[in-house]
Amino acid sequence: MPAAELIELWRGGLREGVHRGHAVIHDGRDVVAAWGEPDAVIFPRSSCKMIQALPMLESGAADAAGLGVEQLALSCASHNGAARHVERVGEWLDGMGLGEADLRCGCHKPWDREEAKRLTCSDAVPSQLHNNCSGKHAGFLSWVRHAGAGAEYVELDHPLQTAIRQATDDVTQEEPAGVGIDGCSAPNFAGSITGLARAMAAFAQPSGDGRGRAMTRLVEAMTTYPELVAGEGRACTELMRAMEGRVAVKTGAEAVFIAIIPERKLGVAVKIEDGGTRASEAAIAALLVHLGVLDRAHPVVGKLLSDPMKNWRGLEVGELRLASGFPV
Amino acid sequence: MPAAELIELWRGGLREGVHRGHAVIHDGRDVVAAWGEPDAVIFPRSSCKMIQALPMLESGAADAAGLGVEQLALSCASHNGAARHVERVGEWLDGMGLGEADLRCGCHKPWDREEAKRLTCSDAVPSQLHNNCSGKHAGFLSWVRHAGAGAEYVELDHPLQTAIRQATDDVTQEEPAGVGIDGCSAPNFAGSITGLARAMAAFAQPSGDGRGRAMTRLVEAMTTYPELVAGEGRACTELMRAMEGRVAVKTGAEAVFIAIIPERKLGVAVKIEDGGTRASEAAIAALLVHLGVLDRAHPVVGKLLSDPMKNWRGLEVGELRLASGFPV
Repeated sequence: MPAAELIELWRGGLREGVHRGHAVIHDGRDVVAAWGEPDAVIFPRSSCKMIQALPMLESGAADAAGLGVEQLALSCASHNGAARHVERVGEWLDGMGLGEADLRCGCHKPWDREEAKRLTCSDAVPSQLHNNCSGKHAGFLSWVRHAGAGAEYVELDHPLQTAIRQATDDVTQEEPAGVGIDGCSAPNFAGSITGLARAMAAFAQPSGDGRGRAMTRLVEAMTTYPELVAGEGRACTELMRAMEGRVAVKTGAEAVFIAIIPERKLGVAVKIEDGGTRASEAAIAALLVHLGVLDRAHPVVGKLLSDPMKNWRGLEVGELRLASGFPV
Repeated sequence: MPAAELIELWRGGLREGVHRGHAVIHDGRDVVAAWGEPDAVIFPRSSCKMIQALPMLESGAADAAGLGVEQLALSCASHNGAARHVERVGEWLDGMGLGEADLRCGCHKPWDREEAKRLTCSDAVPSQLHNNCSGKHAGFLSWVRHAGAGAEYVELDHPLQTAIRQATDDVTQEEPAGVGIDGCSAPNFAGSITGLARAMAAFAQPSGDGRGRAMTRLVEAMTTYPELVAGEGRACTELMRAMEGRVAVKTGAEAVFIAIIPERKLGVAVKIEDGGTRASEAAIAALLVHLGVLDRAHPVVGKLLSDPMKNWRGLEVGELRLASGFPV
């Protein structure tokens, strides 16, 4: 099936735009519900960071380094590069006797308004610590340090990436459909959106073995520190706060969004084919309301989906709407 | 027909995303070529500013006020709010004995990096002069002053908007399919993408009457001052510079783009249904190359369409591609 119409933009009583995509709800055995093409091949991008963090825990590297819950949350984060993120990742590297130069994620201006202002107004350049993936890369370096592996940890043939590839195969129950280079230079394994939802269902119903315990610790870290996983004003942070620790969610570039719902033993994956983040955020909010884990009346639902869009003078000019048949 | 696939995003040898939309090339009499649905109803948003400026010239208001070519360019602009734009619009208002408070466009942070830095680092708030539509609104006020009309010039029943509605009907040769409120609070009349392309073809082959002379002056103003129509680094400015005054182009919110090509007597209109600006910019560049008015080897074509996408470490991670059948 082709991509389904999921989110519409309305203005003046007319449909001004539409976002198409794919969404799957999975219970670990079967697809519970799907929109669009459940076999569509996607790049999960940053939505799979909790999968990429599994080797760090399963290898014993996290415990050997004495990593805390905050560090586990940062290892799954696409953070804002706020002071709280930069300081914690910097201290993490210091603790390993490493520094910013050991990261391989590259530099970009932080999304956090205050930190961006501080850099701009002091004519300072961002460091790799500001990169939204710096916590994931610090976790990568913890694995590298524990394994005594080489410094070029984002190379596809580095043993860390081999371990991540194996963990990805295990939890998605698929072979990768391909591999791309992510914005942070790490390999990103493509697969079906059903495979991604299946993996999130595995995180929602962890077994009692080492992998299950690793999954539990990562989900608990994400839901315990939502502000470390993204930042103030970000959808991931506000959604996890709204659900008060019951659900872990994670966004990815090009409009991917996942949810891990332990109380329902469900995994959810959304991909908007045009990469429109406003639509992936609206779609995951709609699915979380649909599944009964997010209060339709919570302000974050209004912010991401149901509040009217206002212009520069505060006039209501349009709105996002759910397309017919999504979610029901 | 549904929206057609126009622009694709590729990563790691796989298609990561796709932008669908509609595009029409019109010669003033007939549709020369179309992709997607030529009857699709769209909001032109800021792509129709040269239509909204027609009453200012046709009424004699522009000449009565002694407006120069720079002001005509600003009246068609979605500018960056750089100092050059803010100063000129401010002087324009001063010349009418009016001020920033007489504008009805609202305030937003300027897109120009230097001006945004100046405001941010001095804890100053943007004024309505920074609004990308402030030049259009100054033109509106010139019409209002000449007509002795009321101050609330963005109200749908204000005589200025009645005049703009009439001009829109004339040049699109359509009745509006609806009306919305734009980001700058002005009414925006919806119509078919073919109607918008037909209107741009009229600007490309102006008659010898008053309207034709107004069209000629507006197109010449846009192509003479591309930096006033948008700003440094913006697609409109760089495309018009690359075509050295031969073609006028204008973007609009939610991924609309038009082109006026006098030497070919053609009008072009593009709408990406998901509002993705990267795709509308790539699509208009592809159509301008296709029509032989933009050099495929010009750097702006690389920037908007054909150069590899690089990540924060400068690694090539993906690329935009033209979908099969677009433009040929």
